[in-house]
Amino acid sequence: MTQAQIICGKTLAAVIDEEVKEAIASLHASFGKTPKLTVVVVGDDPASAIYVNNKVKRCRKVGIESEKLALDANIFQAELTQVIRDLSADPDTHGILLQLPLPNGMNAREILHEIAPEKDVDGFHPLNFGSFMAGSQDALAPCTPQGCLRLLKTVIDDFHGKDATVIGCSNIVGKPMAELLLQQGCSVTSVHHLSHDIEGKVRAADIIVAAAGSPHLVKADWVKPGAVVIDVGINRLRDLGDGKSGIVGDVDFEAVSKVASAITPVPGGVGPLTISYLLVNTVRAFAHQIGASKIEL
Amino acid sequence: MTQAQIICGKTLAAVIDEEVKEAIASLHASFGKTPKLTVVVVGDDPASAIYVNNKVKRCRKVGIESEKLALDANIFQAELTQVIRDLSADPDTHGILLQLPLPNGMNAREILHEIAPEKDVDGFHPLNFGSFMAGSQDALAPCTPQGCLRLLKTVIDDFHGKDATVIGCSNIVGKPMAELLLQQGCSVTSVHHLSHDIEGKVRAADIIVAAAGSPHLVKADWVKPGAVVIDVGINRLRDLGDGKSGIVGDVDFEAVSKVASAITPVPGGVGPLTISYLLVNTVRAFAHQIGASKIEL
Repeated sequence: MTQAQIICGKTLAAVIDEEVKEAIASLHASFGKTPKLTVVVVGDDPASAIYVNNKVKRCRKVGIESEKLALDANIFQAELTQVIRDLSADPDTHGILLQLPLPNGMNAREILHEIAPEKDVDGFHPLNFGSFMAGSQDALAPCTPQGCLRLLKTVIDDFHGKDATVIGCSNIVGKPMAELLLQQGCSVTSVHHLSHDIEGKVRAADIIVAAAGSPHLVKADWVKPGAVVIDVGINRLRDLGDGKSGIVGDVDFEAVSKVASAITPVPGGVGPLTISYLLVNTVRAFAHQIGASKIEL
Repeated sequence: MTQAQIICGKTLAAVIDEEVKEAIASLHASFGKTPKLTVVVVGDDPASAIYVNNKVKRCRKVGIESEKLALDANIFQAELTQVIRDLSADPDTHGILLQLPLPNGMNAREILHEIAPEKDVDGFHPLNFGSFMAGSQDALAPCTPQGCLRLLKTVIDDFHGKDATVIGCSNIVGKPMAELLLQQGCSVTSVHHLSHDIEGKVRAADIIVAAAGSPHLVKADWVKPGAVVIDVGINRLRDLGDGKSGIVGDVDFEAVSKVASAITPVPGGVGPLTISYLLVNTVRAFAHQIGASKIEL
């Protein structure tokens, strides 16, 4: 029985933090300016509060100025739209992040479209999404898939011709992940809740990215020996079996780690990398806005 | 030995022409206006000239006013850009089509971005491509994949859980085709020139869309008995084997039609449908610009 290499997201995130710090220092030396991210959060969803605080902390750590705009859950959509427009026009804000979900009754898509594309550090604006999905290397790309690819690159040198299966087809993870893997030269199979024989399609893969939102969906016998497994799932369970609550991924980690050659844990795998690429996108957006040439990030 | 149903693009295109005519008549009755498509062609590429003439003819046939702007091959990019900007601002032009390829030295991507997204009847502008790839039903979508889906719908009632393999990952066909098939509920595998075991991935499919640009790539033993095969390839051969020149698809039609349950011919399959959806997109763009509510097309 072998044991898969654990791809540690925390360690890699620390490496990227240093890269981001260096880029910021270099830009500051040339332009005398510091990047600023503004995080807009509406209402008091407790999970959102944790996510936003984590993002603000990580910004501080690498030297990105950050501001949290906490808005009342009862704000009108028109008011929120105006806040986003003002930030889009504010030369001191380089990145805008609208924390989702929004309170019921608000049209997130409409409001996200108001974020100036060059400040859209989540990569959700259709102009960015379209450029990215068409293969542009300059577009602000969604954070989580960028993080997944970086994790994969720690264990895979050459992606050409590898078979990848992506479980889940969301606009935030599944679709852009498939695009990144195609760009690397993989064949990509996208599966979802309507798919037949998901197990077989996962079992055929050299690279598995699980983003289904279904706890422990991927079993050991779904995985080809030696495959690399990236687990994007963040599922909150009230009882992990030992009476304690906690977070589990979309992959049965314990069993799959005896079959795969490398695997990300949950937590501590993809999660930290998602924030890393929020920081990277913020610095990329900042560099573009201050007129710096392309940066190495 | 069975014989596949031939999915006739010409017949279906005639049906869509009637639908387009009816939509135009209905919009004219309510708004007193007629849609207009302007086709911009630069230089004298003979293939482009044929394509453009076909498009103009089909417009005339359904009652779309059309204009061909033939520009000199030596025009400066800045001048061409200004032509596109003027058309984008012209209230009498509802659709703009820039015929590709452009002469060497011109940046097609930059110029395509100048087309007002609401007049971008090819669906190539990143704003449209992004909205489409994110699943929006309102975006102007690329024409060829829309045509392929319509052809598939003549022989498939329920796409849920079907396995589709798309050969080729271009922004114009492969990627948007994969997205449309995902939207229908298929599992989708995207393969390309770097893929390993393309045959096996094609053989696993219930639906095969070949858009590789490689004559007779798909052989009979690549195809699962009963699969549906859509051939997007348009390959010009100097000698078809009988000394005559002509056009062949990416599929070995004669052999595959003895295995598949349904198949499109080349020519006369996907080709006519691509122009059909150019007409459909023009009427959709027109309806949106004159303030008509959503039309049935």
